[in-house]
This record gives sequence, C-alpha cells and structure tokens, in this order.
Amino acid sequence: MMKLRVKIWLEEDGQPVFGDGRLKLLKEIQKTGSITAATENLGVSYRHAWGEIRKIEQRLGFKLIDTQTGGRGGGGASLTPRAIDFLQSYEKISKSVSAEITKKFGILNL
Amino acid sequence: MMKLRVKIWLEEDGQPVFGDGRLKLLKEIQKTGSITAATENLGVSYRHAWGEIRKIEQRLGFKLIDTQTGGRGGGGASLTPRAIDFLQSYEKISKSVSAEITKKFGILNL
Repeated sequence: MMKLRVKIWLEEDGQPVFGDGRLKLLKEIQKTGSITAATENLGVSYRHAWGEIRKIEQRLGFKLIDTQTGGRGGGGASLTPRAIDFLQSYEKISKSVSAEITKKFGILNL
Repeated sequence: MMKLRVKIWLEEDGQPVFGDGRLKLLKEIQKTGSITAATENLGVSYRHAWGEIRKIEQRLGFKLIDTQTGGRGGGGASLTPRAIDFLQSYEKISKSVSAEITKKFGILNL
C-alpha cells in the first residue's frame, strides 16, 4: 500500500525556525519540567538542547523557557505562556496539514 | 516573514519509495539521456545512482530505465514509458500539495 507522507517546518528568510525535532524537545521539557530530564529522555546533550532553544528564541523574538533554580527539589524549567501558545498553534497547523493531505490524497495507487 | 515549508515522499510498508532526491536523479537522467552525465551533474557516484534506481524499481515493481549500449555516440539511458507516467503523477501530486498548503496557510504570522 503506497502512502503519501508529509513533513512540515517553519522557515524565516530561508532559515529553519521550527520543526518536529524542536517540537519534540519543547514538549519533553513541558512534560518533565526539567531540561536535564528532557535531554536524557531524548538522548541529546544539555548543551545541544540550550543551543536549539536559543536559536528558536532568536528567530521568534521571545523567551521560551522559564528556569527556577535551587530550592528543596532542585531547579526546574517550564515553558513560558508564549511558548505554550506557539506550540499549540504549530501543532494545530501540523495536524491540519496532515488531515488535509489525507483527505485529498489518502492512500495512493500510482 | 515566517513561511510554512512542506516536504512529501512516498512510503510503502514504512519504507521510503520515492522523494525529491530520487525525483531529481530520474529527471536528470531524462534530461541528459545518460546515467553517467546525470551522476556527474548531481555529484553522486554511478554506483549510488544504480543502487537508487534498483531500490525504486523493486518497490514499484517495474523497470524505470532503458539502456542503449555501444554505437557511434556511445551508450545512453532513457526513462521507460511507465517511469515517465510515474514521474508525471508524482510531480502533479507534489505541486498539488504545495498549492493546497499555500492556499490554506500561505505566509504565517505565528
């Protein structure tokens, strides 16, 4: 059965801004409340994760992560309200594109 | 200006069958009438190109390339009629997906 697959991402001036990899990273930070935990779960380095976050922030022009340091349970990280809004918009578009493609092309018989 | 980009490819049973890279290779063979010339223009090895062609042929179940050996002007390669049909269908779908995405989402203001 031949299927049409589709991948989307956002670009600005020809530079990648956001795609599935960065979505995964932010969602994992949101889920775990910790950058360290997120990077361990995804098998990427802490340095890489921060590099990615900084790149997205620079492109979008707003902060994505709030960090809390110290305290009894140690530090933590959470997404800023704008980051949460952005993720929701992106996922909505992503699902909408998939639905559109499936509706229009479905399974192919080339 | 934020733009939504999209990439499509064909899969069968979770295995990639055809995408932009393979499209480029077949179109270059069609244009030049020669596998050697196509691989030189694309900067890939002859061996790699044949490997790719064989993989697509196995997945699709039909021959893509007709080769002519010898003669005054040396050998040549051309796409089979089924390969030409397939390329046309694929490009039509690809353009249609892009048009659909542009119509529905255009330039984004996330």
